[in-house]
Amino acid sequence: MSEPTTETTARWVPHAGGAVEIPAGAPPRITLIDYTPDQVVEREVTDPQQCETFRKANSVTWVNVDGLQNPAVLEKLSQSMGFHSLTLEDILNTDLRPKIEDYGDYIYVVAKMLDVDRETERIRVDQLSLVLGPNYVVSIQEEAGDPFEPVRNRIRNAAGRLRRSGADYLAHALLDVVVDQYFTVMDWISERIEAIDESVTEDERGDLMQRLYTLKRAVIFLRKSIFPLRDVVSTLRNIDSDLILETTQPYLRDLHDHVVPLSDRIETGRDLLSGLQDVYLSTLSNRTNTVMKIVAVFSSVFLPLTFITGVFGMNFEFMPLIHRSWGFALSVLGMLLIVSAMLGYFRYKRWL
Amino acid sequence: MSEPTTETTARWVPHAGGAVEIPAGAPPRITLIDYTPDQVVEREVTDPQQCETFRKANSVTWVNVDGLQNPAVLEKLSQSMGFHSLTLEDILNTDLRPKIEDYGDYIYVVAKMLDVDRETERIRVDQLSLVLGPNYVVSIQEEAGDPFEPVRNRIRNAAGRLRRSGADYLAHALLDVVVDQYFTVMDWISERIEAIDESVTEDERGDLMQRLYTLKRAVIFLRKSIFPLRDVVSTLRNIDSDLILETTQPYLRDLHDHVVPLSDRIETGRDLLSGLQDVYLSTLSNRTNTVMKIVAVFSSVFLPLTFITGVFGMNFEFMPLIHRSWGFALSVLGMLLIVSAMLGYFRYKRWL
Amino acid sequence: MSEPTTETTARWVPHAGGAVEIPAGAPPRITLIDYTPDQVVEREVTDPQQCETFRKANSVTWVNVDGLQNPAVLEKLSQSMGFHSLTLEDILNTDLRPKIEDYGDYIYVVAKMLDVDRETERIRVDQLSLVLGPNYVVSIQEEAGDPFEPVRNRIRNAAGRLRRSGADYLAHALLDVVVDQYFTVMDWISERIEAIDESVTEDERGDLMQRLYTLKRAVIFLRKSIFPLRDVVSTLRNIDSDLILETTQPYLRDLHDHVVPLSDRIETGRDLLSGLQDVYLSTLSNRTNTVMKIVAVFSSVFLPLTFITGVFGMNFEFMPLIHRSWGFALSVLGMLLIVSAMLGYFRYKRWL
Amino acid sequence: MSEPTTETTARWVPHAGGAVEIPAGAPPRITLIDYTPDQVVEREVTDPQQCETFRKANSVTWVNVDGLQNPAVLEKLSQSMGFHSLTLEDILNTDLRPKIEDYGDYIYVVAKMLDVDRETERIRVDQLSLVLGPNYVVSIQEEAGDPFEPVRNRIRNAAGRLRRSGADYLAHALLDVVVDQYFTVMDWISERIEAIDESVTEDERGDLMQRLYTLKRAVIFLRKSIFPLRDVVSTLRNIDSDLILETTQPYLRDLHDHVVPLSDRIETGRDLLSGLQDVYLSTLSNRTNTVMKIVAVFSSVFLPLTFITGVFGMNFEFMPLIHRSWGFALSVLGMLLIVSAMLGYFRYKRWL
Amino acid sequence: MSEPTTETTARWVPHAGGAVEIPAGAPPRITLIDYTPDQVVEREVTDPQQCETFRKANSVTWVNVDGLQNPAVLEKLSQSMGFHSLTLEDILNTDLRPKIEDYGDYIYVVAKMLDVDRETERIRVDQLSLVLGPNYVVSIQEEAGDPFEPVRNRIRNAAGRLRRSGADYLAHALLDVVVDQYFTVMDWISERIEAIDESVTEDERGDLMQRLYTLKRAVIFLRKSIFPLRDVVSTLRNIDSDLILETTQPYLRDLHDHVVPLSDRIETGRDLLSGLQDVYLSTLSNRTNTVMKIVAVFSSVFLPLTFITGVFGMNFEFMPLIHRSWGFALSVLGMLLIVSAMLGYFRYKRWL
Repeated sequence: MSEPTTETTARWVPHAGGAVEIPAGAPPRITLIDYTPDQVVEREVTDPQQCETFRKANSVTWVNVDGLQNPAVLEKLSQSMGFHSLTLEDILNTDLRPKIEDYGDYIYVVAKMLDVDRETERIRVDQLSLVLGPNYVVSIQEEAGDPFEPVRNRIRNAAGRLRRSGADYLAHALLDVVVDQYFTVMDWISERIEAIDESVTEDERGDLMQRLYTLKRAVIFLRKSIFPLRDVVSTLRNIDSDLILETTQPYLRDLHDHVVPLSDRIETGRDLLSGLQDVYLSTLSNRTNTVMKIVAVFSSVFLPLTFITGVFGMNFEFMPLIHRSWGFALSVLGMLLIVSAMLGYFRYKRWL
Repeated sequence: MSEPTTETTARWVPHAGGAVEIPAGAPPRITLIDYTPDQVVEREVTDPQQCETFRKANSVTWVNVDGLQNPAVLEKLSQSMGFHSLTLEDILNTDLRPKIEDYGDYIYVVAKMLDVDRETERIRVDQLSLVLGPNYVVSIQEEAGDPFEPVRNRIRNAAGRLRRSGADYLAHALLDVVVDQYFTVMDWISERIEAIDESVTEDERGDLMQRLYTLKRAVIFLRKSIFPLRDVVSTLRNIDSDLILETTQPYLRDLHDHVVPLSDRIETGRDLLSGLQDVYLSTLSNRTNTVMKIVAVFSSVFLPLTFITGVFGMNFEFMPLIHRSWGFALSVLGMLLIVSAMLGYFRYKRWL
Repeated sequence: MSEPTTETTARWVPHAGGAVEIPAGAPPRITLIDYTPDQVVEREVTDPQQCETFRKANSVTWVNVDGLQNPAVLEKLSQSMGFHSLTLEDILNTDLRPKIEDYGDYIYVVAKMLDVDRETERIRVDQLSLVLGPNYVVSIQEEAGDPFEPVRNRIRNAAGRLRRSGADYLAHALLDVVVDQYFTVMDWISERIEAIDESVTEDERGDLMQRLYTLKRAVIFLRKSIFPLRDVVSTLRNIDSDLILETTQPYLRDLHDHVVPLSDRIETGRDLLSGLQDVYLSTLSNRTNTVMKIVAVFSSVFLPLTFITGVFGMNFEFMPLIHRSWGFALSVLGMLLIVSAMLGYFRYKRWL
Repeated sequence: MSEPTTETTARWVPHAGGAVEIPAGAPPRITLIDYTPDQVVEREVTDPQQCETFRKANSVTWVNVDGLQNPAVLEKLSQSMGFHSLTLEDILNTDLRPKIEDYGDYIYVVAKMLDVDRETERIRVDQLSLVLGPNYVVSIQEEAGDPFEPVRNRIRNAAGRLRRSGADYLAHALLDVVVDQYFTVMDWISERIEAIDESVTEDERGDLMQRLYTLKRAVIFLRKSIFPLRDVVSTLRNIDSDLILETTQPYLRDLHDHVVPLSDRIETGRDLLSGLQDVYLSTLSNRTNTVMKIVAVFSSVFLPLTFITGVFGMNFEFMPLIHRSWGFALSVLGMLLIVSAMLGYFRYKRWL
Repeated sequence: MSEPTTETTARWVPHAGGAVEIPAGAPPRITLIDYTPDQVVEREVTDPQQCETFRKANSVTWVNVDGLQNPAVLEKLSQSMGFHSLTLEDILNTDLRPKIEDYGDYIYVVAKMLDVDRETERIRVDQLSLVLGPNYVVSIQEEAGDPFEPVRNRIRNAAGRLRRSGADYLAHALLDVVVDQYFTVMDWISERIEAIDESVTEDERGDLMQRLYTLKRAVIFLRKSIFPLRDVVSTLRNIDSDLILETTQPYLRDLHDHVVPLSDRIETGRDLLSGLQDVYLSTLSNRTNTVMKIVAVFSSVFLPLTFITGVFGMNFEFMPLIHRSWGFALSVLGMLLIVSAMLGYFRYKRWL
């Protein structure tokens, strides 16, 4: 495929206002963090070749790229890091499925970062490319605005194991953030389902089905991202590569143990949504029944009564009862009897 | 994942009043039972290190912990028993999927304990961590209030094989209680389905769909807990570990034989629930039809009659029949004919 | 699991009147048939130990037990036949899944016997335990009243291969009867589906959905029994045991070939039932439409007419037409025009 | 199973008038075609033993049997051809699943022949047993009237490879005819689906759901026959038997390539049928809405108007407007205003 | 199968006007492009044997055939290229499933080319047969009008790797175009789903279900083509053949990476379509409710009022209130009270 298809699944889930708009062709923002247990260097990079010095040093180098709008810069970076030409192509193609590939020199991981735009209730998808080399990690995202700030702070503050560990632990930490984001999305979905669960029979806006559909769509996207990611993490855990130290393995297993219940929760969410949908549809049917009963009650009570008044409203010269003083009272009595009979019947049917 | 996600599936199934509320940070309640065929020692433990002496003795030691609200105490316990740091992390993470892990020195099992709150008709979930070591079992639960009292009594009374067997048989006995609880939950669901089955066409409260949904949700949770547990039991049965004596193996096979029909029953429950749902929805449609027929009968009988009375109620000076003595009788006769025709038609259509 | 769960799937399918009620604790009825090609001994046994002599003889011994209500007698039988304690436990547990276990000395088979109670339209389930030993078969059923009389007659009359063959052929003959029963049940379901198929659009009792549900429930139970039985027969066919003679193998293969199309028919039954359900629901919708059309026709014809009579029924002193001799005729003409227009419209819409 | 179950799936799909009725017990019609590249002998056989001479000759012998109603004759045939007793039993049992069995001397194949009865729109099922021996083929069908006439003609006219090839190619040719019949059935289904597709929203007979159900039932039967047949063909293609020449193998592979897209088409048919069903049900809902709107329009326009005429039809002595000369005109004006308002509202709602 | 079935799946998806109609029996259009890195020869061929010279040269030869209506010409081509007779049969059979076959001398690939006819909203299917030989590619299509013009231009302009690579790269380029077409179709489906998503609750034409069905049908066809193609590409990637150079392998892997997310998108499309369908059906139910409420409001307000006017319109001689001067006012007051009560009730029920 000569030109990578940029027509992505993102079509379904447009990137909403939260993301910073970057003019096409503008150079992507490249930040570099280089650390050893003892010191941290952090800088913004304009020329990708600047990264090369850091990469060759013994320290752990993390290069983060925001935005794919300028392929030329990425190509330069790719060359300076020694990436295969197909890796570059994959980085630029935002329509990929989460996958992992071991190129020997480096491991290439594609994942999807999800985010809820709580206003539009849509899920934002952002593709993350991770390249894990001997002592460096390159992370490339479609859009500016990433969720990795906590990781940067842990590096800056030398908190936890991060500063003392290698590039593989850094890669694990980044994927961990991605999975945590999935939990956030799933929690949002859970909250919404819970809220609907409590109000399903009292919906008055008539748009509950659409709200269920919005959540269903969110679950579909979550599912589409999480299932291949589970395979990626599973492969990463079992990969036979010098790039992954043995001490990092338990943490990868741990990451795997976190991804698995997430897919359980997604299935549960699907089942609950479809259950709520059934409840809602039967609520609609019940409401139609209620409204129909009102029509039935009023029709069956007042149509006969009005008929009787009609009878005595006719202009025949010779009509019975008309000229009796108790005629009116008798007719009213008859009507009351009819009303009682009908209401009794409806009470018996428990419609009232 | 640095902080274990405490946002669990329990979100869907809140722990209701039955469980004792424990203030966050309060030390968990730790009870210890130490037994040989000849004697039993039972005590409440405040300092986890007290457990160590018992553990090293030749007797079987069962340490039970209620509540995860104080990680520090659990960490101390974990150290004194020699657990891996990831085991501790798993114990504290209540969002795990039932699983089994063989650490060599000990086997770590995670299971879900289910319980029906019959008032709110919700299922309570409580995570159980079981650690089976050479001659000890540590059981840790999220909440106070456990179902293991019968096991304790069998130890105290030296009833059955329990006192004469090792720690592996104790672990089996505890898991057996967990599975028995699932049967209790499934029986409750069965009863409820049976009750709905008998009244599905007479539902008058209009909330039958929600009651079906409540049961469906219960089945979903049961299913989510039982399927991985089946794998856990199956693994436990086939595990190659010195911790499981050969004499205990038939009992594990037996445990497995009990878990399997449970999953059959869950599937049956699902199918029956969805069948009942279809019956209920068709009942609603039939009811709408019945109500509509009443409207149709009354409209088609009384609208023509009222029209006739209207005709003879008009104030034209020159109108036929008006001045005849038999005019009224004739009009009434005509109306009776119309009524008979309509009723005959509806009888023919079997609406009456 | 110390106490076998007696809360069985039978909960869904209560044993109806057809089965003989046995008081709890009463001794089960034990019958013994012992045969060689030359002679048959048949007797009722009160003390299980009486069986032992027969078992040790060279003849084929068939011990049949009706009723599980007295565990003590069964325990005695179990000991005298040399069963493992877990086999006894399984015999007493009526909640098992069809399964097969090779204990070396004997093969233990669990199957479900199904029977339709044509009055209540429910399926009766009875658990059958079969123990096949060197020259004996023990068959144990939950309830009195078994379908094995034809087999007994074939033994008594020395009909077919049965008298000349060993215990393995007898076991095959018993399982064959069980499978034949499934065909009877499936035929009953097929007949009922066929009957509904022919009357689905004319249902007037409004309970067709429940009748479909009854059949669906029957299919679910059949399915639940037949699928594991298929595995049992398949295992039995391939088992490597001295207890199964080579000459019996083709008959087991044949049994397997009969079970397989049964599961096909079950799937077909499911699909047809769900298809009929869809037809029925659309029939209901069509009916609602028909009823609504009647209301619409009568409303749209008579509401305008009645309005016109109302206009000329008003008591204004100065009204047009009232005092003309042709006023009434004109108003009637106008009404006829309206009726014609409305009826023409409905004919055009093909509602009439 | 001593007596083969004759209660077949044909219960669902009764053989309709097209098949020739054969009195039970009458001898089946046996035809024999014996051919070499040079000559053809064709005759009707009354005594199965006559076949034996032909079988032993070097020529290819095709024995075709129509009707299973006389087991004795088939038993004789079976003996004279040297079939295993179980093969005979399978031939007589019409409830089998398509299967293939290699007996060494011969290969036994069971397939289902399908045919549409275009009048009753039901599918006729006929079981075909094929026995392929060293230089003979025996084909046995349940009913008279087979689709193999074209094959006979190709033999008679020495058209194509058939006369020059062995018995295995003949067997292939017969199975090919069976598969072609499936294509005919599938084409019929496709045509019907296409026809419904074009008229789904204009159905006036109200029986569209039943027509869809008829097709769905046809698809279910096709599916039930084609899936095991695919396995049969696949096995036949890979079988390691001297009975299949290497030169015939590509033709078997070709047969397989024709069966596979058929199962694709069946799945497509299922999906399209269920899609059309959804369209039809929503059409019904839309119609109900349309009818309801008519009722709503007439009610909301004429009920207020009639009320106004009622007001001025009351017999109070002292009423406003009554005695004014412009009273009637004013009331009519008021009514026109109401009509305009209501119609405007409905136009705004786009109901008109 | 002697005559290849021409009754294809295309039955469902008729080739619409966009394709050039070719009279049956007319010779197909054969074009030949022969290129080396240095030069390109391009010509229209009338006699298939002309191709032979080019095939034997060292250059890469691409023979493209439009139209299957003249089997004789194709047979001639087939012979001159040395194809197996079954390959020719497969080329002529347009009912094949996408597949790949390695004949040693050449690799034969069948794929489906899809195209949206945006006017009729139907998907056109065109079968593509690709034969990859040592230094030639033969591509045969059912219909004139192919999507390969960009590939031809890349050859003519010597753009990219194409001119410098072998026949295997050309085959890859052609398959790549086929996959790109699938993306175009999927994008069209996505756009349509997005459009429906935005207007699902405002559908006024009442044909939304059909539009959903049209898309569903498109998804079914896409799915039916893409799933076997995925297998084809996967096989092609792993095939052990001299015809595929090692340098082409990464491009085949890349092709595979593009097909996989496509099947993800198809599944997503299915899920979204079925979700939208549910939303639409609930919208219909909501509308019925709204219409019914209007009927209920008007019936329950005006039926009682009209009844009251009827009462005072009766012609009894002795009636209360009639002769009082405030009688009319009182009756109007009563009516107003009734109206207020009803409207208050409906407001309370939130129907207004």
